[in-house]
Amino acid sequence: MKAKTAKETLAQTSKIVLPNDTNVLGNLMGGQLLNWMDITAGIAAQRHSRRVVVTASVNNVSFSKPVKLGDVITIEAKVSRAFTSSMEVYLDVHVDLNNGKTEKVNEAIYTFVAVDQNGSAIEVPDLIPETDVEKERFDGALRRRQLSLILAGKMKPKDATELKAIFDLEPN
Amino acid sequence: MKAKTAKETLAQTSKIVLPNDTNVLGNLMGGQLLNWMDITAGIAAQRHSRRVVVTASVNNVSFSKPVKLGDVITIEAKVSRAFTSSMEVYLDVHVDLNNGKTEKVNEAIYTFVAVDQNGSAIEVPDLIPETDVEKERFDGALRRRQLSLILAGKMKPKDATELKAIFDLEPN
Amino acid sequence: MKAKTAKETLAQTSKIVLPNDTNVLGNLMGGQLLNWMDITAGIAAQRHSRRVVVTASVNNVSFSKPVKLGDVITIEAKVSRAFTSSMEVYLDVHVDLNNGKTEKVNEAIYTFVAVDQNGSAIEVPDLIPETDVEKERFDGALRRRQLSLILAGKMKPKDATELKAIFDLEPN
Amino acid sequence: MKAKTAKETLAQTSKIVLPNDTNVLGNLMGGQLLNWMDITAGIAAQRHSRRVVVTASVNNVSFSKPVKLGDVITIEAKVSRAFTSSMEVYLDVHVDLNNGKTEKVNEAIYTFVAVDQNGSAIEVPDLIPETDVEKERFDGALRRRQLSLILAGKMKPKDATELKAIFDLEPN
Amino acid sequence: MKAKTAKETLAQTSKIVLPNDTNVLGNLMGGQLLNWMDITAGIAAQRHSRRVVVTASVNNVSFSKPVKLGDVITIEAKVSRAFTSSMEVYLDVHVDLNNGKTEKVNEAIYTFVAVDQNGSAIEVPDLIPETDVEKERFDGALRRRQLSLILAGKMKPKDATELKAIFDLEPN
Amino acid sequence: MKAKTAKETLAQTSKIVLPNDTNVLGNLMGGQLLNWMDITAGIAAQRHSRRVVVTASVNNVSFSKPVKLGDVITIEAKVSRAFTSSMEVYLDVHVDLNNGKTEKVNEAIYTFVAVDQNGSAIEVPDLIPETDVEKERFDGALRRRQLSLILAGKMKPKDATELKAIFDLEPN
Repeated sequence: MKAKTAKETLAQTSKIVLPNDTNVLGNLMGGQLLNWMDITAGIAAQRHSRRVVVTASVNNVSFSKPVKLGDVITIEAKVSRAFTSSMEVYLDVHVDLNNGKTEKVNEAIYTFVAVDQNGSAIEVPDLIPETDVEKERFDGALRRRQLSLILAGKMKPKDATELKAIFDLEPN
Repeated sequence: MKAKTAKETLAQTSKIVLPNDTNVLGNLMGGQLLNWMDITAGIAAQRHSRRVVVTASVNNVSFSKPVKLGDVITIEAKVSRAFTSSMEVYLDVHVDLNNGKTEKVNEAIYTFVAVDQNGSAIEVPDLIPETDVEKERFDGALRRRQLSLILAGKMKPKDATELKAIFDLEPN
Repeated sequence: MKAKTAKETLAQTSKIVLPNDTNVLGNLMGGQLLNWMDITAGIAAQRHSRRVVVTASVNNVSFSKPVKLGDVITIEAKVSRAFTSSMEVYLDVHVDLNNGKTEKVNEAIYTFVAVDQNGSAIEVPDLIPETDVEKERFDGALRRRQLSLILAGKMKPKDATELKAIFDLEPN
Repeated sequence: MKAKTAKETLAQTSKIVLPNDTNVLGNLMGGQLLNWMDITAGIAAQRHSRRVVVTASVNNVSFSKPVKLGDVITIEAKVSRAFTSSMEVYLDVHVDLNNGKTEKVNEAIYTFVAVDQNGSAIEVPDLIPETDVEKERFDGALRRRQLSLILAGKMKPKDATELKAIFDLEPN
Repeated sequence: MKAKTAKETLAQTSKIVLPNDTNVLGNLMGGQLLNWMDITAGIAAQRHSRRVVVTASVNNVSFSKPVKLGDVITIEAKVSRAFTSSMEVYLDVHVDLNNGKTEKVNEAIYTFVAVDQNGSAIEVPDLIPETDVEKERFDGALRRRQLSLILAGKMKPKDATELKAIFDLEPN
Repeated sequence: MKAKTAKETLAQTSKIVLPNDTNVLGNLMGGQLLNWMDITAGIAAQRHSRRVVVTASVNNVSFSKPVKLGDVITIEAKVSRAFTSSMEVYLDVHVDLNNGKTEKVNEAIYTFVAVDQNGSAIEVPDLIPETDVEKERFDGALRRRQLSLILAGKMKPKDATELKAIFDLEPN
């Protein structure tokens, strides 16, 4: 199974925020953005695996800046790392500004699993990070996976060598 | 500001899974469920704070069991802990079975912030857990908050006393 | 076939009124509420019969108070009486008020029929009312059924003994 | 205020039944049809009153024949009678058959109230029925109104002269 | 295969413009109207052919007047000419005015192809224009078809006799 | 007003075809694609003009290949030429294939007008084509504009010098 570069998995979607996407303050609702990100991330995972993919988990989505009615946002999703049958997908969301620039409003991490027609997990190719950002996210993916396995009770904290490093960086 | 019990914040929603909510395998898509959970969790946070609330972050959503076209699911959301202006909301999702019972298919944690009409954060009442599950989630909320502050670079690992306990449970 | 209590059939749904649900006055449109009530009532009928159910008729829905954009409404549906293969479902709709209370804004009655995979009507369990309100609705269901049969030309007015009582309460 | 003929109030809508409009048997769901009828009936009432109109009540909707995925249905709505500020709207729903004919699948009666910008009821013109069917529905509207006032406790049964006639047609 | 009159193919749809159909100026967005016209035109083509029909092309849609939030528009579609397996459908869109009249806001031409269950093109009946407008559109359909074939490189300009007439009307 | 390159106006959107987007053959309906293309083209026009834009016309959309339920399509839109206040936008639609390649399924041309807050047309920057395809589309835009002005009766055929060239390529 031939490994793919992160770039080959890129999926992009631009959206105009319509009235039904907004709350009473006229800002994009979190749930609508979560849904759009899920679909874009799923396309990235499908491009990596060429398989049907299903959402396995969502981690670390934080909504820092409000997005307004009528704003144009662009969601970019790339697979950041592949593990046997699962793929971590990293998303960046930018909003168009009036000066022709864009501003980052959101970052999120979804995990997908590739499945066959019976819904059973199936192997996926490895992911090759190329840029510095892709490499950093590739490395972080292992720590996030360990954390997620610990929280789910499937890994003992002492075995999470990558994750433990975070807590050892500074003297107690 | 009078504290509220978790029970007072309960929001419930039952849904039938329709064709547009499903992927090519005929299962409920993760993004649609994320959107429904966001709305139900927002109602719970609004009942706690009696304010407009906005989604601040989503953590630890994992999709363990597929939900099928035509299934009836029930989303229950309750505030699990309040911190100054933010509220952690815990969600449980069950599906109706043919024998009249229900089965848990999903668990998720969202964080909301109460805001005034300008979108500025505003104080919310404390949350009083009553049942054993509510108390356990109330305690866990502190660890999750520390973890989230560390990951966002806003807290030093050595100060996350609650979180560190996880790693000290077993001898190295 | 084991009879069920009204309570066992309860289905609940909370909704935030979004822009597309409202008319030019910014109030929830009747048709959208009729659709939401149909889905919630259908879940109650499905919980009673554990069968696929189809809407047979709608009676006596009146819209007394306007519901506004951004309001949170809660729809509660319970089977009020079962007749061979049909189930009368009684709905109450409340809106959240700013003081933490709720106010009733709507009441409706839908009738569903349980069907098999060919769409043929199929027998359902009896319904056991427990509270005073449930008993009152259980009794009223018979009068409503007689009225509906007369209006459809399937019953002679002289045989509608329950219904005639209404007109005999006062001397002519 | 110049009276209008029923014909002048006609509103028509043709729809193709899409996947999300159907239940697990592949038939049009009642709630979706109720919503479409509400919108079409509202256009008829708006054409009669040239005012904003709001749904006041729904009566006597019965779903006799299933409508399938992909079917084309046509909803026709005409005001059947006007009372001060309210309008009864009569709807007929037909489905296209393969032989180029259509078949009636549904009949419904909605009541709308014309309102000003504050939502207060406002007077509407009289309705002039012309065809035999329009005249029959015009006459029936009075009986339906009496029945609805009695059920709402706003009229004494002995005063419902039109309605009582139904029960006097046959000797007791 | 019996020819049909244009009138027999008429499909009509009335819509109220809702918030999600509008842009930031509060006017109906072009894409939403294109979608509604496609569905209405498809019903007209289906009524002509009594077959499944698929959109083949869209030509000459121009948006001249803005339509506002809350406006009622009526889309009328009739087949204007049939060619072997394709049908040109002509659409007129009117908006209700406050004085009880309507004003034309849009005109569009769509082409549909009738297909069998495998999606292969299949013959359709001829179209008989009756009114003056129907005859004019019937004649114009030939010129539009020639233009479309030339632009697609499937016809040589010198063979487009009907179309060339446009350029020969005036002396060079 | 500084001219922009075509590349600076690029807008991209990837979509998964869901059940409600398809007809009874399970293929993407033309109207849904027209709507998606309108939104993506509008974003390109907005990026060129940094103004609110409204759809002015749609030309030459042809649907050559069916797109199936579950397929991933990518819509790419770039401004192809600017005229005073209007912008021609050229769209290409590709579908993901199983072998990791994509196939072109659609091409369309929309025209947008930039407007101020009153909806009045407002000047836009010039467009600079760079690649061969961009230059070819830039040149073609003039012929299409002449054709459209003639068809609308706003230009005499003899003045459409660019367009006439098409008919003069071959001897009569």
